[in-house]
Amino acid sequence: MSYTDFVDKSHTPSNDELVALFYVEPVEGISLEEAAGRVASESSNGTWTEVVTMSDRIRKLSAKAYEFNGFWVKIAYPLELFELGSMPQVWSSIAGNIFGMKALKNLRLEDIYWPPDMVRSFPGPGKGIKGVREILKVEKRPILATVPKPKVGMTTEEHVKAAYEIWVGGVDLLKDDENLTSQSFNRFEERVKESLKMRDKAEKETGERKSYLVNVTAPFYEMKERAEMVADLGGEFIMIDILTTGWSSLQAMREVAEDLGLAIHAHRAFHAAFTRNRKHGVSMKVVAESARLVGVDTIHVGTVVGKLVSPLEEVTALADVLRKDKIDEDWERKVLPKNWMGKKQTLPVSSGGLHPGLVPDVLRILGTEIMIQAGGGVLGHPKGPREGAAAMRQALYAAMNGIPLEEYAKDHKELRAALEHWGYMKPV
Amino acid sequence: MSYTDFVDKSHTPSNDELVALFYVEPVEGISLEEAAGRVASESSNGTWTEVVTMSDRIRKLSAKAYEFNGFWVKIAYPLELFELGSMPQVWSSIAGNIFGMKALKNLRLEDIYWPPDMVRSFPGPGKGIKGVREILKVEKRPILATVPKPKVGMTTEEHVKAAYEIWVGGVDLLKDDENLTSQSFNRFEERVKESLKMRDKAEKETGERKSYLVNVTAPFYEMKERAEMVADLGGEFIMIDILTTGWSSLQAMREVAEDLGLAIHAHRAFHAAFTRNRKHGVSMKVVAESARLVGVDTIHVGTVVGKLVSPLEEVTALADVLRKDKIDEDWERKVLPKNWMGKKQTLPVSSGGLHPGLVPDVLRILGTEIMIQAGGGVLGHPKGPREGAAAMRQALYAAMNGIPLEEYAKDHKELRAALEHWGYMKPV
Repeated sequence: MSYTDFVDKSHTPSNDELVALFYVEPVEGISLEEAAGRVASESSNGTWTEVVTMSDRIRKLSAKAYEFNGFWVKIAYPLELFELGSMPQVWSSIAGNIFGMKALKNLRLEDIYWPPDMVRSFPGPGKGIKGVREILKVEKRPILATVPKPKVGMTTEEHVKAAYEIWVGGVDLLKDDENLTSQSFNRFEERVKESLKMRDKAEKETGERKSYLVNVTAPFYEMKERAEMVADLGGEFIMIDILTTGWSSLQAMREVAEDLGLAIHAHRAFHAAFTRNRKHGVSMKVVAESARLVGVDTIHVGTVVGKLVSPLEEVTALADVLRKDKIDEDWERKVLPKNWMGKKQTLPVSSGGLHPGLVPDVLRILGTEIMIQAGGGVLGHPKGPREGAAAMRQALYAAMNGIPLEEYAKDHKELRAALEHWGYMKPV
Repeated sequence: MSYTDFVDKSHTPSNDELVALFYVEPVEGISLEEAAGRVASESSNGTWTEVVTMSDRIRKLSAKAYEFNGFWVKIAYPLELFELGSMPQVWSSIAGNIFGMKALKNLRLEDIYWPPDMVRSFPGPGKGIKGVREILKVEKRPILATVPKPKVGMTTEEHVKAAYEIWVGGVDLLKDDENLTSQSFNRFEERVKESLKMRDKAEKETGERKSYLVNVTAPFYEMKERAEMVADLGGEFIMIDILTTGWSSLQAMREVAEDLGLAIHAHRAFHAAFTRNRKHGVSMKVVAESARLVGVDTIHVGTVVGKLVSPLEEVTALADVLRKDKIDEDWERKVLPKNWMGKKQTLPVSSGGLHPGLVPDVLRILGTEIMIQAGGGVLGHPKGPREGAAAMRQALYAAMNGIPLEEYAKDHKELRAALEHWGYMKPV
């Protein structure tokens, strides 16, 4: 088989084939068609030379590059190539060796159409947006979360004190940051125990539900034990750095969480190592879709306006693939058709450099079915964490009700202080 | 704290600090020092704004950008920032959010100096090069492995037939490819059972030890079961796509493998999505070092001369960090000092577009303490897989003994046929 055997412009994929949209940039001297054929070959059943073991039956399993549009190429994969229900296998197939091929200058996996049998083979979120709202008894407004900053270094006592302040100030969810797990200054078990005790106190004082996104990121057995500890101590959420732990343990943790009745918050630390370059790697859409299938309940999608790179069309596309059940192809944002077949929704989390002044922007871009997470934007409030939390809730209320922040700030001193401190500054 | 608090050119890191070498390219309008300070801040305990919860004690945990050399910056991290023995936590810290910062155009984590306490907190390989050689009773020459191609699509019967041919032809190790796990055409249990039966037959006929790198890549619980099946059926190796499964389950599988007496072969599918761009992402060195610490016995490092991108200085650096116990700083290849404190060696695997004509090159570059893996270069032999395997062994023998291939081919017809077919062609 030569590479041209993996190109077929007359191919019309059936509903059952997986389709991947790639940006394919060949090296000099190789045509786009040949490069695309090589990608289809290496990611299915071809190799660099003819082999005597090839047969007509096996040839039917070949992937086909079938649609070309500038450097954009769609490749269709027969479903038989995949092991259903195994996210690592899907990624090893269509996001595996191909990024290293000498024939290519750049290659990016931009989006995937997931065929129905594959969608069915994954559980999707256990709680979903509805379940998360039920836990917190927050019906309409965005959920508000805060990481106590400095994100590492506080003692358990300092951490719990900050937690109390932000909870009573108005935050729904205390959150650990991606690199806080169980270090000597703030051990896991003690932190969870003391924080959840404080949570009970904050709930009593405010009459609101409060909870805690506990970072259980660790080698699998340890991660499982930590999740059990969270459940035993009365927690409702675990948080996992899904990309530095990986798909294999995330799938197992989805089962663990189901057994324990916990929701899963997904942090995406590491993603920009392979999602940021628009011409190479894998898009954040593919990460988000994989995460929804495996079954995380909430996941970071960016802010557009915050400190981390997250372009508008990417953030809105992420919100769509996480929240909608069906999507038509959207060439503008490079979204392939989706049909999640009733899988629960994953709540998009907007985070990274947010403060009250940016809240109206975030709601305008993402709507209200979101979690807003602000760390520095709460802990950095000039009057302190409790006032920082209150200012965020006030900004949320104003934005939800179409009241300009300046106006609402007139008789809300915490918001006023936040606006005087940060204004509408977009952090770099 | 401002970003400049995370820059200290007078800092001399102690032996106990973790040092990361970054390529830091700021966006316009931001100085290199500021950009480096922001990286140190975001990857330790800073954020984008001042927070009232900061204290002198916490400030002592800050990372420090301390050495600048062009765009290259060394950052020192106090050991207390990390959870010992947790690879996901290390990656979430120093390879987490930082790649997405708006202040940077590009950022690459190029190498790590791992402090002794952190090295001690990981087990390293269970078998190591010595153990792998003992399993196969191959003392000096490179180990020879082959993936039957087409890599997916063969039935179990076809797979086992190919396995027999390559084993009796002279290959030591049958290997699954990264995307062959348990698909409908070739189910896992049946494949392992039949292959290992055939292995016994091949051993009897050749008088040589033969084994099988069985791809157990899957969600964790399934992966564990598959490893147990391999051990029950008399296998000695499991293979894991370590990056699409992830560090968390790999660490757990290291324990599983220890209990079962199995060696771990690491496939690096997906790495080039984040290692290929020399200015952004994470280097393959960091992947290889992390894998050695966690404890894989063999791992792919590239070929220099094959079908996948793998530059000479990278491949030799990988071989060094996997095989040596101590390394001095090598600025040419951007290797920070290493001291693995007696951890076992990981065997570098050279693979991807290899055939007999390229064997002398690979040995010249990497020496003989390697595994050579050829799929197409065995199955694509014009006379068939058995002859393909024989040709590879002949090429190995000739290269080990300094005999030019053309000369050795005169009275070795399998090698002669391979050279007539492929010559010394370097595949693109």
